[in-house]
Amino acid sequence: MPNRITVKRGFASDNNAGVHPKVLEAIAAANEGHVIAYGDDPYTEAAVELFREHFGKEVDVYFVFGGTGANVLGLKAATESHHAIICADTAHINVDECGAPERFTGCKLLSVPTKAGKITVDQVLPFMHAVGFEHHVQPRVISVSQATEMGTVYQPRELKKLSDFAHKNGMLLHMDGARIANAAVSLKATLSAITRDVGVDVLSFGGAKNGMMYGEAVIFFDRSLAKDFKYTRKQGTHLSSKMRFISAQFSALLTDDLWRKNAIHTNTMAKLLAQELAKIPMVEISQKVESNGVFAIIPKKYIAKLQQQSFFYTWNEEISEVRFMTSFDTTPEDISAFVALVKKTLR
Amino acid sequence: MPNRITVKRGFASDNNAGVHPKVLEAIAAANEGHVIAYGDDPYTEAAVELFREHFGKEVDVYFVFGGTGANVLGLKAATESHHAIICADTAHINVDECGAPERFTGCKLLSVPTKAGKITVDQVLPFMHAVGFEHHVQPRVISVSQATEMGTVYQPRELKKLSDFAHKNGMLLHMDGARIANAAVSLKATLSAITRDVGVDVLSFGGAKNGMMYGEAVIFFDRSLAKDFKYTRKQGTHLSSKMRFISAQFSALLTDDLWRKNAIHTNTMAKLLAQELAKIPMVEISQKVESNGVFAIIPKKYIAKLQQQSFFYTWNEEISEVRFMTSFDTTPEDISAFVALVKKTLR
Amino acid sequence: MPNRITVKRGFASDNNAGVHPKVLEAIAAANEGHVIAYGDDPYTEAAVELFREHFGKEVDVYFVFGGTGANVLGLKAATESHHAIICADTAHINVDECGAPERFTGCKLLSVPTKAGKITVDQVLPFMHAVGFEHHVQPRVISVSQATEMGTVYQPRELKKLSDFAHKNGMLLHMDGARIANAAVSLKATLSAITRDVGVDVLSFGGAKNGMMYGEAVIFFDRSLAKDFKYTRKQGTHLSSKMRFISAQFSALLTDDLWRKNAIHTNTMAKLLAQELAKIPMVEISQKVESNGVFAIIPKKYIAKLQQQSFFYTWNEEISEVRFMTSFDTTPEDISAFVALVKKTLR
Amino acid sequence: MPNRITVKRGFASDNNAGVHPKVLEAIAAANEGHVIAYGDDPYTEAAVELFREHFGKEVDVYFVFGGTGANVLGLKAATESHHAIICADTAHINVDECGAPERFTGCKLLSVPTKAGKITVDQVLPFMHAVGFEHHVQPRVISVSQATEMGTVYQPRELKKLSDFAHKNGMLLHMDGARIANAAVSLKATLSAITRDVGVDVLSFGGAKNGMMYGEAVIFFDRSLAKDFKYTRKQGTHLSSKMRFISAQFSALLTDDLWRKNAIHTNTMAKLLAQELAKIPMVEISQKVESNGVFAIIPKKYIAKLQQQSFFYTWNEEISEVRFMTSFDTTPEDISAFVALVKKTLR
Repeated sequence: MPNRITVKRGFASDNNAGVHPKVLEAIAAANEGHVIAYGDDPYTEAAVELFREHFGKEVDVYFVFGGTGANVLGLKAATESHHAIICADTAHINVDECGAPERFTGCKLLSVPTKAGKITVDQVLPFMHAVGFEHHVQPRVISVSQATEMGTVYQPRELKKLSDFAHKNGMLLHMDGARIANAAVSLKATLSAITRDVGVDVLSFGGAKNGMMYGEAVIFFDRSLAKDFKYTRKQGTHLSSKMRFISAQFSALLTDDLWRKNAIHTNTMAKLLAQELAKIPMVEISQKVESNGVFAIIPKKYIAKLQQQSFFYTWNEEISEVRFMTSFDTTPEDISAFVALVKKTLR
Repeated sequence: MPNRITVKRGFASDNNAGVHPKVLEAIAAANEGHVIAYGDDPYTEAAVELFREHFGKEVDVYFVFGGTGANVLGLKAATESHHAIICADTAHINVDECGAPERFTGCKLLSVPTKAGKITVDQVLPFMHAVGFEHHVQPRVISVSQATEMGTVYQPRELKKLSDFAHKNGMLLHMDGARIANAAVSLKATLSAITRDVGVDVLSFGGAKNGMMYGEAVIFFDRSLAKDFKYTRKQGTHLSSKMRFISAQFSALLTDDLWRKNAIHTNTMAKLLAQELAKIPMVEISQKVESNGVFAIIPKKYIAKLQQQSFFYTWNEEISEVRFMTSFDTTPEDISAFVALVKKTLR
Repeated sequence: MPNRITVKRGFASDNNAGVHPKVLEAIAAANEGHVIAYGDDPYTEAAVELFREHFGKEVDVYFVFGGTGANVLGLKAATESHHAIICADTAHINVDECGAPERFTGCKLLSVPTKAGKITVDQVLPFMHAVGFEHHVQPRVISVSQATEMGTVYQPRELKKLSDFAHKNGMLLHMDGARIANAAVSLKATLSAITRDVGVDVLSFGGAKNGMMYGEAVIFFDRSLAKDFKYTRKQGTHLSSKMRFISAQFSALLTDDLWRKNAIHTNTMAKLLAQELAKIPMVEISQKVESNGVFAIIPKKYIAKLQQQSFFYTWNEEISEVRFMTSFDTTPEDISAFVALVKKTLR
Repeated sequence: MPNRITVKRGFASDNNAGVHPKVLEAIAAANEGHVIAYGDDPYTEAAVELFREHFGKEVDVYFVFGGTGANVLGLKAATESHHAIICADTAHINVDECGAPERFTGCKLLSVPTKAGKITVDQVLPFMHAVGFEHHVQPRVISVSQATEMGTVYQPRELKKLSDFAHKNGMLLHMDGARIANAAVSLKATLSAITRDVGVDVLSFGGAKNGMMYGEAVIFFDRSLAKDFKYTRKQGTHLSSKMRFISAQFSALLTDDLWRKNAIHTNTMAKLLAQELAKIPMVEISQKVESNGVFAIIPKKYIAKLQQQSFFYTWNEEISEVRFMTSFDTTPEDISAFVALVKKTLR
């Protein structure tokens, strides 16, 4: 065990946070006796049941180890290799998964430039020229991130437009919901209202960024896509042997609205952070703060100095834009300390 | 949370056990403050250091979520898609990973029939006719399981023969060490003595079957294979965001010889189980008991009845062979109760 | 252009022969003016029509460059990556395609040991234990070679048994028909009688081994498999730009029964060769001669000497078995000269 | 054989042309006796020798069936699956190969918007931010088309800049030379001067678009990339059994400068076509005519009418841009007839 661990909280990533205490308790509580491995156990049954309380009986729910796995396997279930997946240029699947989607699905990703990480039907239209021509990949999936990588969220009506378009054209709507809780809270909506009810076909439901240790759910609203998914998950190396421990975490998150409480807190902290940073003369908030990401333009010369004292990522070097993320354990004190640091450094 | 969980322990699988208390403690202890995600954290550094105490400074260690992932990614690092991987017919990679090795590496698996799950150089020889002919896949990796799926273990000299042959022919030795601890304990050997010292090039080091919740390590003794492995792991969807929790588990396992204590206990319980079962007239122990698996032939008509009361798997229907696995939490009382059950049922 | 080409004909491979004069004529005749590339041309329409005269209106026909491509793409159309393809140990897809089937389909090949290259339902049965278990690849395709790589042919009733079994179990029958003409002629059957009529779902129809320069057809009797095949072929790099020249070759082969005449001649020559070789004391014909392959056991010490004078391949070094292939251009004189050579060498 | 074939020549595609008579003669001349299949024959040896006369002794040359195969396999030889291939948005590999590059290499294609189909180092630079970060695909190959899909050509110094940048950064330069002959002729350069001499590492050398029936060459200037290429080609389903017929075609093309004569004629016809079209009031030539493609903007309302009489492709519907291609068999009469048609239609 390391002798000395930095326990300070920062704003680099919601992945830098640990595990919510209630999630840890649930893990400990599940650690009793033997249960059948690989998901045929009562913990998993219970967790799936909780998901169905949110999304209705008619969904299929599969747990996997992590977010890239969830995206990649969900997309595999929705595609043949000659298909194309249309997404925002900023999408996690496009930028941050080391090409796993292409590698695993064989599909081409067609990305569109976006403001604020959100795509529209108009941007999908030009790709439809390819339909029916064997020389070109065939548009099959529109993939959106909710909340987006830019901290913004899609309005339900925006998602509905995308899914309507998709379905009219024999296509599907995939949602990377690594931060689905933050989006729901931001929109004051139920989880179903921004997924199932607006026509999402397959969803990566995030756990780790909202207080879990590991584990992500792939949720199929179009159940025909799930037909062979148990094999896809196993062949995709994401069938956990001691599944009960993923399940117990999800049960904790979906019990007593923990998922919502965490996200409310996280989003509130982001608003607060943005509000305070905006008061500093040389800082410009560069994206709407709709979930737990705060993007800001800060004069280049101060960035490295700030990072040394409290690390965060530069998002766009060209325009000197940086990213701050809040997490379930961010405190108002963390924010005031950090804002003070920025003020001092930028003076 | 389910109202009623069966806490009884059985002999179906070492994956049906939970998490060792010390591992759970280590997880809880790591749950403090923020650390950099994706492995650039002091917990991971410390765990890698502990691995190096066992295997020497000159190894590369990467953590992944699970065993199939470890095997598949380690093999990917060792192969091009026109290569062949030679393994036992019973190998986990050949039978129990839903074709993930072929899917992910593109390679062909060439399996050889084995007694007791162990392959020999003689069995590899016929595949060497293919060398240099572009019509045939090219032998590149010999993959062994240590301990084997049949509960047996390779003697160090047997492994040395395989690695010598491999290296003389420009090939590599891969070891699926999902139960490497059980093998080391069985051979009264160090971990290094049955891996690095006998020429293993890449090792899947098992965690879950020896008391961890999740997490497996890919260990490269031939470090040239690890050159691009960080990308392979990420693209292979096995880079954990909150890596520290895998690392903390491994640190627990490698501290105060917990790995060894667990394996000694598990193996001892298997010996005891085999010994007691052997006394029952209609039971025949069908494999050497060298690790934590006990294989037995039981008259077919009793099997279902036994399974109803304490589940276990039929291994080979043709010869009515069943498999019992012990785990770190198996107690002598579990065994005497189960043996009594078998006696009563077979009367 | 090389100054000096060996024009001698031998028995090494039916791929060593050139192009039938009528096929070459058809190519030259098609070389007039412009037609739409990639298959939307009258030559291709005409060739497909000729295939439909043989196999009925209800088939889909796609041309590809070569035999490995035909097998691999046909199998891709019939499988998901978690499926298994069951075939003879000697199958071309198992031995001679450098792992292309695994690489391209992601599937596992499950091979069974065969006498004479033919598999039976009994050999498929054990793989059915895996059905429904996500840890195991799922049996999906039985693939047969007709004629086999051992020069034998399946009787129609043998194929019917395999297809009946396959269809009852939600599986498909694939046929590698690189030498389908030789098989039909051997069985005195129509092309349909040994494919469509006995339940084959997808067929690789061979061209090159029966007098064509290049080109193979993938024929779908189960047309649902062909739904996306135009994309599969293009993404699979087998869409020929100047398609008309493949089509014209097939039209030549299917006009005036050229396919049949070539195969009759080739098979007759094989019978003659086998008959004459069998008279030589130290030569033992080791397989039934049912198409254009002749397998013989010859004392090891003479093999290299013979090969130097007229090259052929050793098939099985362990038992000193060699392979001779006849082709459409083999003459009785070729045979008598070669038999004389063998006699002289073995004296 | 179809009763009625349209022998009219048009401007839709250089793939719509047939085979040059000298190429056909060479095929016929090679159709004598038996030679070893799969490329171990004197025709192939001779063709490779002719390539070496152009590119120097130190190159490796492999023949494949077609252009997409050549690109895909050459790129596979140059990459690992976590790599990125950077290319123009208009590149054939990006648009016209149905995702085959992604499917076969596993790599991500990163495309950049271009004027005239040509990319510059400046456009590659932003991707270099990703280097060393496992979350992102790693830039490995810059792929250029010479001539481009827009009918333009890279100047040697432009290629040199790209290769210098690539090599300084551990990257490679790939060239899709489907129309390499047209480019060389346009630049009045040798084949070597625009490939090897300017730092190209691997080249797809086109045959079909310059008068061949089928066949493309993959040429490795960086021979280390070719180490395992014979397996890559076979596993990639592009090893032709009757290889001599591809080889004979290439020999014809490389004998008596046929490649150059064809390309000179083709390019000259394109210039003439452009020149004549430019005289028509409502036609605007929209790209430099540097090889055999002529791009023109024509009022939308006339396009369909023109296409009905002499088919060609609309390139960019938004701006009403169409594409005309000349080929080795285009005649001045074809051009004057077509120009007359355009004039008449646009009146």
